[in-house]
Amino acid sequence: MKLWKKNTDSLKEVETFTVGKDREMDLYLAPFDVLGSLAHIQMLESVGLLKKEELTELQKELRSIYAEIQQGQFSLQDDVEDIHSQVELLLTQRIGDAGKKIHSARSRNDQVLLDLKLFLRSEIEGIVKAVLPFFELLQAQSEKYKEYLLPGYTHLQLAMPSSFGLWFGAYAESLVDDMTTLKAAYEVINKNPLGSAAGYGSSFPINRTLTTKLLGFSTLNYNVVYAQMGRGKAERVVAQALANIADTLARISMDATLYLNQNFSFISFPPELTTGSSIMPHKKNPDVFELIRSHCNRIKALPNEITIMTTNLPSGYHRDLQLLKEHLFPAFKIVKDCIEMAGLLLSNIEVKPDLLKDEKYKYLFTVDQVNQLVLQGVPFRDAYIQVGRSVEDGTYRVPEHLEIKDPHEGSIRNLCTVEIRQLMDTAIASFDFETVHRAYRQLLQTE
Amino acid sequence: MKLWKKNTDSLKEVETFTVGKDREMDLYLAPFDVLGSLAHIQMLESVGLLKKEELTELQKELRSIYAEIQQGQFSLQDDVEDIHSQVELLLTQRIGDAGKKIHSARSRNDQVLLDLKLFLRSEIEGIVKAVLPFFELLQAQSEKYKEYLLPGYTHLQLAMPSSFGLWFGAYAESLVDDMTTLKAAYEVINKNPLGSAAGYGSSFPINRTLTTKLLGFSTLNYNVVYAQMGRGKAERVVAQALANIADTLARISMDATLYLNQNFSFISFPPELTTGSSIMPHKKNPDVFELIRSHCNRIKALPNEITIMTTNLPSGYHRDLQLLKEHLFPAFKIVKDCIEMAGLLLSNIEVKPDLLKDEKYKYLFTVDQVNQLVLQGVPFRDAYIQVGRSVEDGTYRVPEHLEIKDPHEGSIRNLCTVEIRQLMDTAIASFDFETVHRAYRQLLQTE
Amino acid sequence: MKLWKKNTDSLKEVETFTVGKDREMDLYLAPFDVLGSLAHIQMLESVGLLKKEELTELQKELRSIYAEIQQGQFSLQDDVEDIHSQVELLLTQRIGDAGKKIHSARSRNDQVLLDLKLFLRSEIEGIVKAVLPFFELLQAQSEKYKEYLLPGYTHLQLAMPSSFGLWFGAYAESLVDDMTTLKAAYEVINKNPLGSAAGYGSSFPINRTLTTKLLGFSTLNYNVVYAQMGRGKAERVVAQALANIADTLARISMDATLYLNQNFSFISFPPELTTGSSIMPHKKNPDVFELIRSHCNRIKALPNEITIMTTNLPSGYHRDLQLLKEHLFPAFKIVKDCIEMAGLLLSNIEVKPDLLKDEKYKYLFTVDQVNQLVLQGVPFRDAYIQVGRSVEDGTYRVPEHLEIKDPHEGSIRNLCTVEIRQLMDTAIASFDFETVHRAYRQLLQTE
Amino acid sequence: MKLWKKNTDSLKEVETFTVGKDREMDLYLAPFDVLGSLAHIQMLESVGLLKKEELTELQKELRSIYAEIQQGQFSLQDDVEDIHSQVELLLTQRIGDAGKKIHSARSRNDQVLLDLKLFLRSEIEGIVKAVLPFFELLQAQSEKYKEYLLPGYTHLQLAMPSSFGLWFGAYAESLVDDMTTLKAAYEVINKNPLGSAAGYGSSFPINRTLTTKLLGFSTLNYNVVYAQMGRGKAERVVAQALANIADTLARISMDATLYLNQNFSFISFPPELTTGSSIMPHKKNPDVFELIRSHCNRIKALPNEITIMTTNLPSGYHRDLQLLKEHLFPAFKIVKDCIEMAGLLLSNIEVKPDLLKDEKYKYLFTVDQVNQLVLQGVPFRDAYIQVGRSVEDGTYRVPEHLEIKDPHEGSIRNLCTVEIRQLMDTAIASFDFETVHRAYRQLLQTE
Repeated sequence: MKLWKKNTDSLKEVETFTVGKDREMDLYLAPFDVLGSLAHIQMLESVGLLKKEELTELQKELRSIYAEIQQGQFSLQDDVEDIHSQVELLLTQRIGDAGKKIHSARSRNDQVLLDLKLFLRSEIEGIVKAVLPFFELLQAQSEKYKEYLLPGYTHLQLAMPSSFGLWFGAYAESLVDDMTTLKAAYEVINKNPLGSAAGYGSSFPINRTLTTKLLGFSTLNYNVVYAQMGRGKAERVVAQALANIADTLARISMDATLYLNQNFSFISFPPELTTGSSIMPHKKNPDVFELIRSHCNRIKALPNEITIMTTNLPSGYHRDLQLLKEHLFPAFKIVKDCIEMAGLLLSNIEVKPDLLKDEKYKYLFTVDQVNQLVLQGVPFRDAYIQVGRSVEDGTYRVPEHLEIKDPHEGSIRNLCTVEIRQLMDTAIASFDFETVHRAYRQLLQTE
Repeated sequence: MKLWKKNTDSLKEVETFTVGKDREMDLYLAPFDVLGSLAHIQMLESVGLLKKEELTELQKELRSIYAEIQQGQFSLQDDVEDIHSQVELLLTQRIGDAGKKIHSARSRNDQVLLDLKLFLRSEIEGIVKAVLPFFELLQAQSEKYKEYLLPGYTHLQLAMPSSFGLWFGAYAESLVDDMTTLKAAYEVINKNPLGSAAGYGSSFPINRTLTTKLLGFSTLNYNVVYAQMGRGKAERVVAQALANIADTLARISMDATLYLNQNFSFISFPPELTTGSSIMPHKKNPDVFELIRSHCNRIKALPNEITIMTTNLPSGYHRDLQLLKEHLFPAFKIVKDCIEMAGLLLSNIEVKPDLLKDEKYKYLFTVDQVNQLVLQGVPFRDAYIQVGRSVEDGTYRVPEHLEIKDPHEGSIRNLCTVEIRQLMDTAIASFDFETVHRAYRQLLQTE
Repeated sequence: MKLWKKNTDSLKEVETFTVGKDREMDLYLAPFDVLGSLAHIQMLESVGLLKKEELTELQKELRSIYAEIQQGQFSLQDDVEDIHSQVELLLTQRIGDAGKKIHSARSRNDQVLLDLKLFLRSEIEGIVKAVLPFFELLQAQSEKYKEYLLPGYTHLQLAMPSSFGLWFGAYAESLVDDMTTLKAAYEVINKNPLGSAAGYGSSFPINRTLTTKLLGFSTLNYNVVYAQMGRGKAERVVAQALANIADTLARISMDATLYLNQNFSFISFPPELTTGSSIMPHKKNPDVFELIRSHCNRIKALPNEITIMTTNLPSGYHRDLQLLKEHLFPAFKIVKDCIEMAGLLLSNIEVKPDLLKDEKYKYLFTVDQVNQLVLQGVPFRDAYIQVGRSVEDGTYRVPEHLEIKDPHEGSIRNLCTVEIRQLMDTAIASFDFETVHRAYRQLLQTE
Repeated sequence: MKLWKKNTDSLKEVETFTVGKDREMDLYLAPFDVLGSLAHIQMLESVGLLKKEELTELQKELRSIYAEIQQGQFSLQDDVEDIHSQVELLLTQRIGDAGKKIHSARSRNDQVLLDLKLFLRSEIEGIVKAVLPFFELLQAQSEKYKEYLLPGYTHLQLAMPSSFGLWFGAYAESLVDDMTTLKAAYEVINKNPLGSAAGYGSSFPINRTLTTKLLGFSTLNYNVVYAQMGRGKAERVVAQALANIADTLARISMDATLYLNQNFSFISFPPELTTGSSIMPHKKNPDVFELIRSHCNRIKALPNEITIMTTNLPSGYHRDLQLLKEHLFPAFKIVKDCIEMAGLLLSNIEVKPDLLKDEKYKYLFTVDQVNQLVLQGVPFRDAYIQVGRSVEDGTYRVPEHLEIKDPHEGSIRNLCTVEIRQLMDTAIASFDFETVHRAYRQLLQTE
């Protein structure tokens, strides 16, 4: 039997195991750790737990650390465990023992929770900023390809005429709903946990309403036990919202790979954006779409992963929560990269015109034609029989024009691009990022 | 090798397979199918696709079918495939061929999609109505047990004093955030898909804005392709929101089973609400909480199930979507039952007083005591050493009183019950169910 | 605030909640409960805990209850909580107090665990019996359509020639691997938990080795704590194996819906097995395949659901486990129905001949042609340039014959149907169901 | 609206996106890529596609690259896309154009698939090698703490006496079943895909049976379409097996954190293996167990992630599959690290003796005492009443000795450690790693 080392020799490997990738993850949190401390010390001073001059000194150094982070000049030293210790170390190196006071009346638990929420809030803003131009592209393409018909399928069987106007516009509108669930996630995380300490509050007379305001939060996680419970929940709710966006991106990618397939041949892309072969000149492998789809499908699995990792944990902090960072933190960049790539390809798409002139699509118009006859006064049953008979005896011809006087909202001839844009504008306006920006500018005295 | 029957003999088993449980599921949709038809026919008449007298006749019969459904006098006949056919059948039996006109200018696809959205909208309202009294109970218990301290754990290790005030209040506040994500789901589904037909729109000059208003929707799913894509997405988004509520319920149940465990012994329940044994008088099995936990954990798996079932389906309707009903539709009742049961138990809970007087909890107060010394002017490091030494040499005593002049927001002595209630009121008010109720009253002419 | 009823009034609703669907689920277990009791009492008699004549009497009645169950004449009375109580009730009605002795030296916990394992063992056998003819069908179709070429895709782009021989054969071989993971699940569950009592063993001098033999188990779950831990694990492991089969079925269904799509048009089905429309004569909706795909994708979500429901439960029985039955128990029939339906459709499939003669597929043969040149001695680079040039200048022609002297194993011209069949035979033989059958025949004295 | 760059400028970012982390992942595959090539070229020579002297030269260089990889002297150059290209580059640098011949008659697709299978096969062996000593530790601790009783819980309520012998032994036995599902995964992946080329086979007269033997595979993935389908499936099946092991580790960790909690206080660990606080001397945070639990719970989510990423992809290669590597490849080390850490802690565990002497556990023995009376001839009902009455009137005393003549298999007094060990030995022997080792030694000529 293997003999495990006695514990005294094994501290190193225990530390390696417990730290894991956490130092790497903490770099994501660096600017937010500084912002949180700036708010915290201003509050400490206001309730008499810090002297005015200590505050001034700490603010000066924290702001300069923030600037270093922004300039990419910040890293965790090898022997420093986490972001909080690194910031404290820098402060004490520069201003002595006063540097340690940023931790007064708070605990590691609420510091990391605050950092997490500020980070998530910022990342959500980044997602919104990436989604908007992509939405605009989809809407622009929807208008540009309004007249380009393509077959609409049900059961993956030819059903009715559709259009690229509808196709692009559908995904634009999908993003509107995705912003709605993202906004809910934003609301859930945009509440101040600072002051919850280890999850049971602090016996210092801190002012949580003040830090709420200083950090631009909409309100507090009042109850300190709930504040701590918010860890895991914040991550899950944000992951759900990301999953919704990811699903929209994965679906458009699935459609694109299908439409690019030679049996469909509805669309094409410049050779530089696909991969090919000189002996198989037909080959235009849509690697980019396949990888968007795969990345996004993986993100769709993330809420479930978080769910498993937090299920049936009794209330109170558990170290399990540390590992939630590892797949969630990089997910924001992945989603933004996928949006960027989808935008690149869809802005360079080539859509085949006159697709529906192909003989194999002719029956797509039968339903519309029956309806036309009905509108001309023919009873539905008779209209149906009449068209059915022409199909059967081979005399059916696609009508030159299907005239519709008042095409309804959201149809091929009435895309409602403006109305959908208004829905998006309303959704995005509801985030109110400016409150956060203003709070940060004040903390950093950059205005 | 087994010989599969030639197809001509096998229609029956194919039908059994394809219908599956769908007729059973359709009963959930019955009232909404009628409401949808009432709006649709009023619109048809307004654009000239139905005569005034046909409208009147259809309205009369649909309203009476609606009443029958409400009175539990409605079922699907054995040979009728779905709810839409059953309603049509009843209408034609009663008023002849005009009964079929409720299907003019729409398709099975948008009819079921509309029914689904109306059903989900109604069920969300039901959930909100069940959550509110449970929230109130938690808040009341939070106030009632404000002074009842219990140990707070981190890493499942004794950490700091907590209270039942905080514990109950935490779950109350959790429900506020759960209402936020539920509201987002409500917004996503509260958009009219009617008129999208098979997912590619209709060539009839229908007025989708009118049906939107008649059904009390906040707006339309404009793009008809997106409207159809909403199937699967609506279910997923609602399931995500349900999962969030379920998580809150599962967590309180986990805590309760732990606190009821004899090693903790923090709480108790009347014998009628637990199961026991006469030779093991200590045994109070918390079956109800275990089943709440299990039901809720299963609901937490539902968004993932929906995700798998819809992943990588190209755009356009697929029959796959039919099966999404089977686990989602009953989930609403399950959540409501779990809330009801949790409410029953938590309203009958017995909380043990003076828990923290037990010797084993005495070190819970050391952090607070260090902080008290700091507030009295002792430098933190000295205070820490002083308390640490008294612990070490066995002279540490729990202080009689930990006086805090200004207990912070959300702490043991300052639960912020009112503020949390305000957050909940705001969350619930945002749903605006009254618009829906008014629309339905008008459709049914019940006012 | 809603007033929850005082507990004394609410026993009824608590019972309704806790029983849930469990009585319905217990019917699945009925025959296995009887078989388990038959083994248990024979053991009890052997260790002196039951008299010879009691044994005989109990055996007689249990066997007759078993027969009633087989004939569908068994149900749970309204006021009876579970299958164990129902069987006991029948026994005491028939032979008096001795009927209660079937529960001596065992507990409800190990009784239901035993029933569960016997049930799962039987259902796995049912799956194997359903898979085999389907495998044979796929192999037969593979041979039948050996010469029917179809395009092979990579990235969903035309790549190389494939064949229906390969396509059918691939899914046949997939089932071989699925039997391997099913066999592992079978091994895990085919161990006797009886005697573990409530999960901590019994102080009666029972003989677990004897019941292991009597029930045809391969061995015991020795450790009684582990035996109880097996609940949840047994379900998960079986669900994983089902998910693997389901994935094979879902994939062939995905392919089939694609190949039936008019842009592909590789296959067709008799009109009775698809749904169509007289005005859209091209429409052949593959509802059956879509529902197989959807059912199977749902089953693929089942292991995850079980995972969530059992995660982080401390060791020892929890009532949570009760709900694992509800989605797993019906899953076996669903898989068997899906196999039946897939078999029905694939045995009636019509495969289009000469698909690859279509001009659009001509470049599929370029790779093979380069290889042919290489085999004739042309250096690869030159061969590639030569074929590439003919493609470029439009002189490329599909070669009449691509002669390959020794087509490799598993290729279009060398399907290895026999070898794959041998793998399947070996996989299925490893289950050794006969040991179980023999044990049951002895318990029931049916031989 | 944002203007996406025209494609010609964007090749770099497309490449960055499509390569992603794949170069990093490919390093895992490096030794297996070389081994695969060694087998492939030996086969090429045997069928006349390579000259004897080319073979010799290639073998020499490949073996030396293999040695470099083993010595950590191998990396991917910045401008090299993947492992296959890097190996080819090294070969051509050293022996000229002949270096390219390792790719004759194969494609990138089957090369990476082969590498993947060889890698997974090797990692499974690594897991088995890590599990065995951990199993032995659990068995040794089970014997060592055989006499240490602890309370057994059901519903997390005190139920019956258990023992640390049972507790450790349960997890040992759990690993036996985990080896069974791991063995099934091993069987599924231990089949040769080489020769399947892009998924449709090769027109070269290759000998797949020979490479099967040379690489020590148990058999072939015969059907080339199925071989390619094995991608995604191999990963899923292995992930399922890992998830089973992870579940065992997560459960023991959950128990350990609970038993270490002060309300339980069943076990303890040396201070070096937990984290504490000098003012809260009771605090022994089980960070290691919490992180094992969290890592393992995340691995339990992996099969579902793979399921989502591969669901509804039509047959044939898709680039989506590339991303399956990123979470699976590191998972093996994580599992091994978790086993190592669990072993470290459990080998240093301190188990509290005489736990059950505490008054609060006294009723644990009532069931056993009833049974004792029954064994002495008292009818069960009377025995039950007698013990129940002594409980009720406060005269109940824990019996000095509960004498059981023949304690049954797997109970506190009869742990069956030897029998469980035999099951494990059989399970592990079935893997037959030696066949693989022998094949590799021959390929590398290291014997």
